[in-house]
Amino acid sequence: MRVRYAETDQMGVVYYANYLVWFEVARTDLLRHSGWSYREMEADGFALPVVEAHCEYRQSARYDDDLEVGATVALLSPVRVRFDYAVVRLSDSAKLACGHTVHASLDPAGRPRRLPDRVRAALTVSP
Amino acid sequence: MRVRYAETDQMGVVYYANYLVWFEVARTDLLRHSGWSYREMEADGFALPVVEAHCEYRQSARYDDDLEVGATVALLSPVRVRFDYAVVRLSDSAKLACGHTVHASLDPAGRPRRLPDRVRAALTVSP
Amino acid sequence: MRVRYAETDQMGVVYYANYLVWFEVARTDLLRHSGWSYREMEADGFALPVVEAHCEYRQSARYDDDLEVGATVALLSPVRVRFDYAVVRLSDSAKLACGHTVHASLDPAGRPRRLPDRVRAALTVSP
Amino acid sequence: MRVRYAETDQMGVVYYANYLVWFEVARTDLLRHSGWSYREMEADGFALPVVEAHCEYRQSARYDDDLEVGATVALLSPVRVRFDYAVVRLSDSAKLACGHTVHASLDPAGRPRRLPDRVRAALTVSP
Repeated sequence: MRVRYAETDQMGVVYYANYLVWFEVARTDLLRHSGWSYREMEADGFALPVVEAHCEYRQSARYDDDLEVGATVALLSPVRVRFDYAVVRLSDSAKLACGHTVHASLDPAGRPRRLPDRVRAALTVSP
Repeated sequence: MRVRYAETDQMGVVYYANYLVWFEVARTDLLRHSGWSYREMEADGFALPVVEAHCEYRQSARYDDDLEVGATVALLSPVRVRFDYAVVRLSDSAKLACGHTVHASLDPAGRPRRLPDRVRAALTVSP
Repeated sequence: MRVRYAETDQMGVVYYANYLVWFEVARTDLLRHSGWSYREMEADGFALPVVEAHCEYRQSARYDDDLEVGATVALLSPVRVRFDYAVVRLSDSAKLACGHTVHASLDPAGRPRRLPDRVRAALTVSP
Repeated sequence: MRVRYAETDQMGVVYYANYLVWFEVARTDLLRHSGWSYREMEADGFALPVVEAHCEYRQSARYDDDLEVGATVALLSPVRVRFDYAVVRLSDSAKLACGHTVHASLDPAGRPRRLPDRVRAALTVSP
């Protein structure tokens, strides 16, 4: 992932909210590779809204930096999932930030809904 | 409207795509005052997707600037509307940018749908 | 603060990273009212980069909602400040989200720099 | 380029201002390949602020779509450059949008500055 000009602010570094956008990109990549894309998930009648987001910033990402945003996933309960993230700059392997998000599994009416068995199986395997 | 830090980029000025966000704020304010909020519009089964957007940039807006984004509207046809915008800095009345957007009136299936008479009447009155 | 269309996502609610943008708006309003605007702060040779951000989401904010984002501040040390936020929907006083950010006080070279006494005094008074 | 969830809005499609962000990504890729990255450009004491942006929307990009955003460049004068863009969905080669931006070449003080000969040479070669 390469840092976009739009993602910087006048301090000359990436605006802090954009790390959460990158987390989401890494999260959906992970889901896609687990065989359950976010698109399918929504088609299947599931939503995974964020109930908690957290980020710790160590060094600033800058415009044009090449980054890798890694994500791992853990099943907290049949209706709750946690993703952990690390943002690494590829040029020097510096760890710029880390964080996590917690998500509820809901049906279209907004009620908790147990994740499908195949998805739970996919998510409990270390990626 | 006060310029947010998130809206700046590392050139120290507002990132150019954000003017289109402000246009949308001015546009929905204008619709709200015309008695047909965007929310009601969507509930009534209309969508007004943008088919064209244009912006000319004269001077840069900066963080914390107090701006006024004016909008006027013109009915191009029963299924097409144009909004014109001007971004003015309040401290010195400098005109920072101007632009326009053109919108199609569609039904939920994406087919052209004539705007309701009361809306057309409201939009043809100069605001 | 009124929710912008740009801030929604296809789930029909506000995209989660945007709460951090609102936090920043509330934070800079608070600083401005304390007599030390972010703009002056930068002119004085200070930066307050975020080192930690956290948000808990209870109910979703939706397009066109009228929100109040409250902020309070606490001095953690002479070089570290914490802001706490609450996002409330005005129509029914529902608390949609809460969170905090922690900031380091740095000089232009990126070294820790003690906040000015007048600022520390202003920040330790409950707002 | 894959469409991010953050880029959608509650109409279920990509929010219109984000096309300008993609234009910028395509523009900076093109500059990088011409041998003059935006980063070097800023280091060399040049800025290329946008003076005009235009976009026409034909079909909507949706979440998770794989897109190609092509850019070509034309030198309008020694101090003015125009980029043209086309957004194509890879799955069916549909042309979703096209547009252009016009940029002024400025020095750090904001005065027009002739683009370096080697850059002008690079930009007049069809990419």
